Amino acid sequence: MSKFEVTVLGASGGPDVGETQCFLIRPFGWHGLESVCVDGGAGTTQISRMLAGELRVGLIESFYERDYEPVNQFFDSDVQVRPGLSDSTLHALDSSPRITSYRSAKVYESIKGYYVTHPHLDHIAAMVVDSPLIFNSPKPMAKTIWGLPFTTSAIERFIFNDSIWPNLIHGGGQRLKTESLTDQIATTNPTFTHIEITPFRVSHGKGAYSPREKIFSTVYLFRDITTDHCIIICGDMEPDSDEPLLSNLCSYLAARVPLHKIKAIIVECSSPIDTKELYGHMSPTRLVEELSHLQNVYGCEQRPDMDVIITHVKGHCSFKDPRLVILNEVRQEAQRFGLEGIRFSVAVKGYTFYL
Amino acid sequence: MSKFEVTVLGASGGPDVGETQCFLIRPFGWHGLESVCVDGGAGTTQISRMLAGELRVGLIESFYERDYEPVNQFFDSDVQVRPGLSDSTLHALDSSPRITSYRSAKVYESIKGYYVTHPHLDHIAAMVVDSPLIFNSPKPMAKTIWGLPFTTSAIERFIFNDSIWPNLIHGGGQRLKTESLTDQIATTNPTFTHIEITPFRVSHGKGAYSPREKIFSTVYLFRDITTDHCIIICGDMEPDSDEPLLSNLCSYLAARVPLHKIKAIIVECSSPIDTKELYGHMSPTRLVEELSHLQNVYGCEQRPDMDVIITHVKGHCSFKDPRLVILNEVRQEAQRFGLEGIRFSVAVKGYTFYL
Repeated sequence: MSKFEVTVLGASGGPDVGETQCFLIRPFGWHGLESVCVDGGAGTTQISRMLAGELRVGLIESFYERDYEPVNQFFDSDVQVRPGLSDSTLHALDSSPRITSYRSAKVYESIKGYYVTHPHLDHIAAMVVDSPLIFNSPKPMAKTIWGLPFTTSAIERFIFNDSIWPNLIHGGGQRLKTESLTDQIATTNPTFTHIEITPFRVSHGKGAYSPREKIFSTVYLFRDITTDHCIIICGDMEPDSDEPLLSNLCSYLAARVPLHKIKAIIVECSSPIDTKELYGHMSPTRLVEELSHLQNVYGCEQRPDMDVIITHVKGHCSFKDPRLVILNEVRQEAQRFGLEGIRFSVAVKGYTFYL
Repeated sequence: MSKFEVTVLGASGGPDVGETQCFLIRPFGWHGLESVCVDGGAGTTQISRMLAGELRVGLIESFYERDYEPVNQFFDSDVQVRPGLSDSTLHALDSSPRITSYRSAKVYESIKGYYVTHPHLDHIAAMVVDSPLIFNSPKPMAKTIWGLPFTTSAIERFIFNDSIWPNLIHGGGQRLKTESLTDQIATTNPTFTHIEITPFRVSHGKGAYSPREKIFSTVYLFRDITTDHCIIICGDMEPDSDEPLLSNLCSYLAARVPLHKIKAIIVECSSPIDTKELYGHMSPTRLVEELSHLQNVYGCEQRPDMDVIITHVKGHCSFKDPRLVILNEVRQEAQRFGLEGIRFSVAVKGYTFYL
């Protein structure tokens, strides 16, 4: 039985502006249209495309060896995933006029806010460019941008500053606001009051100009407090170096959540194994090492039963679709490390995972 | 005989992140792959789509009354426009492997720089998110971001600052650089040495939080110095209020360029006539008033023979596609004002105008 619906509005690690990371999340089978997003790299454009049924049945846009690849190459055969918005979302939309722009606006209206992992542009661009819709709509709506302080402050200082974008946070009558979260402190989502969300600060490399400046990102733990079922959604990240960050996350989980209750980890794996410079990102080897570390922290008495969904693959000049290269490498590494109980898939825009 | 090729990578006024304003410009029939862009709201994603032939023949994605509308509704029957990249671009690509991602990377490689009208995110997002490709490519490449100082300084301070995006300008070994232009001073493009480009500062409303803060944008004049043929490409803008900015542009043109040499004006018209608040933008009435003003400055001895191509239409909750509503209103206003010699069309992503 699924616990969460995760619609992939975007999952690219770039370039692909407008199709970069954004996951629209709802409790499974939720009756209304409400949702929250993790990150805001994609938005209304993708929602409209999904509603207009632009996906080619059984095929995924690739632009490498072939322009379209068969869908089954991207997903584990046992993962629950279907094209388009979730069944419950479409059901809640049923009474809306059959005009794509109206229906898209309804879905956008009902996004209550964004849990942003870090302020890099590929994680916020659509959230920002979509934001005037909050004010143009006949129906009053409000949205919150949640994040650790380094995220919310950068978005306020550098984006909504009347230079890069109209300052709709301070000049918008409270319809758009930021709310800072605290590292490792759970808060209940105001709409989904049985869902608790906890942010974990993680490392994401160093500044390109100031190599002494550390760049951080966030992993979000979504927990259903009635059942303890969890999903974990990661921003860009790299393994720990001088601070125990991912390591703290593993200990936190092991102390509070039985391993089999973790339904899914959506995690970046930007580049294939042979990449020389990872710029603060994960590779297939790094990813499997971290999953192996998580298994070790839990100990061999507990066995996972989870989906690991790879996101944020970067576009490369290659013959084969880098998402398929990476998925294959991750599966091979998992076998080499003896990992069991994990189903590996790729996050593909326009698809909903039932987790 | 056409003088310029203008490929519309994006022309939306938002939301539509990834499909907002970006025009890829080349002299007509240019033998290489080189180009420059005005604005960078769209990029490699759209180039790939065009190369993969994703456009439906004769139909334009709309998402309003119908999901697709017949193409002829968007263009004047005499304008030279065809789907896809320009014939000369495709010819220059001929020897490249038939892999969309490779061919898209080749076209991107050959964009020599961006003339940015103003730093609002919908005009720069793809330029920024595409920029790591400059450094990942096996072939050394360099790109310049040109703009008036308010544009280049905002892009440096707020975007390439290691917080919103890696500081590839100061940490990237000169492969990506900004170059400030001076208002009303022509510079020769380093690649197309017979093309002179002149920026004109124009008004774009006020800050959302600080209404005393004026927001500016830029109009670019592209002039072929061998023939005097021009195209004019506008950023977001509004009519003059306290400073004669558009008015100076008209006088500058009238003093230097015969009216019939202006082949095209690509100009924003964000919202239909009945819009209450224009937020520093043009409406059909405002646009036709400005065109009428231009005609008056030239006097009745000179008659235009130009295309006016409407860009930056904002998405609205409406039954009819706002681009078609606005095109219709602009044509009616032009008739009411007695404008002659102007062909009106809409800039549609994925199409190349031969001007």
